[in-house]
Amino acid sequence: MKLLRVDTLDEAMEKLLRAAVMLPLNTQQIRTEEAVGRVLAGDIVSAEDIPGFRRSTVDGYAVLAQDTQGAAEALPVLLRVVEEVDAGQVPKHRLQSGQCAYVPTGGMIPEGADAMVMIEYCEPFGTGQIAVGQPVSPGRDVVPVGDDIRGGSVFLKKGTEVRAQEIGGLLAAGIIEIPVFAPFRVTVLSTGDELVEPGEPLGPGQMRDINSGVLKTLARQYGCDVIHTELIKDDREQLSRTIYSAMRGSDLVLLSGGSSQGNRDFTAEVIDQLAKPGVFTHGLALKPGKPTILGYDESSRTILAGLPGHPAAAMLVFVLLFGRILKQLRGEKPPVCMKAQMECNVPGAPGRETCQLVQLLPGGDGYLARPVFGKSGLITTLTEADGFTMIPVNREGLHTGERVCVWPI
Amino acid sequence: MKLLRVDTLDEAMEKLLRAAVMLPLNTQQIRTEEAVGRVLAGDIVSAEDIPGFRRSTVDGYAVLAQDTQGAAEALPVLLRVVEEVDAGQVPKHRLQSGQCAYVPTGGMIPEGADAMVMIEYCEPFGTGQIAVGQPVSPGRDVVPVGDDIRGGSVFLKKGTEVRAQEIGGLLAAGIIEIPVFAPFRVTVLSTGDELVEPGEPLGPGQMRDINSGVLKTLARQYGCDVIHTELIKDDREQLSRTIYSAMRGSDLVLLSGGSSQGNRDFTAEVIDQLAKPGVFTHGLALKPGKPTILGYDESSRTILAGLPGHPAAAMLVFVLLFGRILKQLRGEKPPVCMKAQMECNVPGAPGRETCQLVQLLPGGDGYLARPVFGKSGLITTLTEADGFTMIPVNREGLHTGERVCVWPI
Repeated sequence: MKLLRVDTLDEAMEKLLRAAVMLPLNTQQIRTEEAVGRVLAGDIVSAEDIPGFRRSTVDGYAVLAQDTQGAAEALPVLLRVVEEVDAGQVPKHRLQSGQCAYVPTGGMIPEGADAMVMIEYCEPFGTGQIAVGQPVSPGRDVVPVGDDIRGGSVFLKKGTEVRAQEIGGLLAAGIIEIPVFAPFRVTVLSTGDELVEPGEPLGPGQMRDINSGVLKTLARQYGCDVIHTELIKDDREQLSRTIYSAMRGSDLVLLSGGSSQGNRDFTAEVIDQLAKPGVFTHGLALKPGKPTILGYDESSRTILAGLPGHPAAAMLVFVLLFGRILKQLRGEKPPVCMKAQMECNVPGAPGRETCQLVQLLPGGDGYLARPVFGKSGLITTLTEADGFTMIPVNREGLHTGERVCVWPI
Repeated sequence: MKLLRVDTLDEAMEKLLRAAVMLPLNTQQIRTEEAVGRVLAGDIVSAEDIPGFRRSTVDGYAVLAQDTQGAAEALPVLLRVVEEVDAGQVPKHRLQSGQCAYVPTGGMIPEGADAMVMIEYCEPFGTGQIAVGQPVSPGRDVVPVGDDIRGGSVFLKKGTEVRAQEIGGLLAAGIIEIPVFAPFRVTVLSTGDELVEPGEPLGPGQMRDINSGVLKTLARQYGCDVIHTELIKDDREQLSRTIYSAMRGSDLVLLSGGSSQGNRDFTAEVIDQLAKPGVFTHGLALKPGKPTILGYDESSRTILAGLPGHPAAAMLVFVLLFGRILKQLRGEKPPVCMKAQMECNVPGAPGRETCQLVQLLPGGDGYLARPVFGKSGLITTLTEADGFTMIPVNREGLHTGERVCVWPI
């Protein structure tokens, strides 16, 4: 057994990022309406001003603001109604002093007018006239041309994750197709003689492979396309062949299982044999997550990761390392965490950073974080958790009431 | 124009919930691996204990804990190795005092043994013997039968949103299909003579319909199936026919646009004509969101909502009302908000609750909330925002440094 120095999470992140920037970052064109959750691969420029005309934000009368000076309920100003502008129509008249035109919400404001008076402040007065009971200043309730989106300017930046509102902005500008980053292609391999497919009957001593399903789901959530999953026996030849063929078509090969020292050793050896420069991280100073192996192959441009076999550990390491790196590669905003206060003391692991699962409960001056304890092999510790918080390596633990960052999982 | 009292958000929520509990809450069976984001429609019980055998969490030797009493590095206890248990295999021997067996991580612990000694604390000693240099207590590094999931017990409750870890738990128990709530069926209708489809050329005075795309995206994010979208002119007959046919197949009909008073009036009239008991909310004391109409038809079991035409208002009202109600109907946990401190003072609207868009920035003792201002018709106020916070009706506004809840959008 070789004695190898393990990396801190930061060291591993730095090495992983150095390798990951070599991954092909492809772009694809997709329909805007189907783009939710995707990340813009380029700045978006509107060809035109939005709105393209001066638009009213209220139902009321378009006026020359100066005509309304001094207007009051007791002393209204009388204006002649020259037209009623329908939604989607172009006004026929240019307003002169003393004139007004009815414009509905969203309607186009006639030339000459520079403000709207809400209908609530207007009274019909004789034939074709209204009485305005309130003064308005220029620009009141008018959206100027280009106020929402300026033609020719970047209104959404590369790296933006598309939400419902970005879809709205894009459609407003008539942009019905957009460039987004193509998903990274991922292969998920589970290894272990003791593992069977979840749908198969379980013999004594056997366990169902759950890491494939968990890692596939997570990888998809982080914008990856899982092109292949496979359950492999602890057979060096088969593992080697499968990894080799996976490297040709994948940006990322995730291996999990093989938690025993023997398996870890041969996973690292196989990666080193197939990939150049090979393994760069031989373990993490992280609890849970110590048996994590990271490597890179330059010629096929593939990241290879041996994740812990314990489901909770595999999931947390994926989120901590790949969740962050994948977002960083696409230039996304760093994620925000939930602030909470520890409900009780919780110890850290000596010499290692600790990833502590927690539940979030209302309390304190916002939320309390209640630790979820359990052996790292137990999947139910994760189903009970809302997220996790990190205990730094140089801390004995977290104390009751301490303010912490909780990352949702 | 009828004078109708508007509802507070709470009043509208209460009425909406009373109507919404009448909606059919159907269940469907889907593959566990594809269930992320769905909500369990029933409690999940495992047929078996997980693990089904006593499992080791480390590489090492299974022992009788009492044999190791008093063991120390300087005075190790010698144990005879009777076998090496392979992963996935059943041990052949029942251990007697003085015996041990090698068991890898995840392996089955032989009968008779009650603890594991990590390999780091064991040294080979002559032929077929090891020297144990550390005492262990009973149960050390052993996962008991059923420790993760107890057979016959509910391990995931109805109303749980399925995340990666729930998929893991289900697969661990061999449950490869699960009952989830069927999506609500939603029709999204945009009305307005000024609106054109986003892909079509824009004439003067015209605007692109963006609410359909935004509401469709949101509805899907909240677990709905958008079965139809349509852009309708301001034509009472066409609106009436379209709503009538939408009611037959939809749980929820979302209308938007028609922001002008005339349009709002006829939307409400059409809903009242087609639906019994009809409109129950004639406006919200909410900024933005005042021109919101809510109604219900008992015989077709359809909720009808006339949302504001302004995109930001339509989106916020959808999230506030339907985002919460839909989760509540399925018994989901209430969402958690982000705690932040106001970066500056922000005024509320007199007599109305205010939904204030904000950006989240690092600062204060966690995050600062910076208000995003803009007319409610502007979609870019939403693309700049990370979320929103509520200003209660009885408050003049929020003050700098005040701790607020920010709901992500």
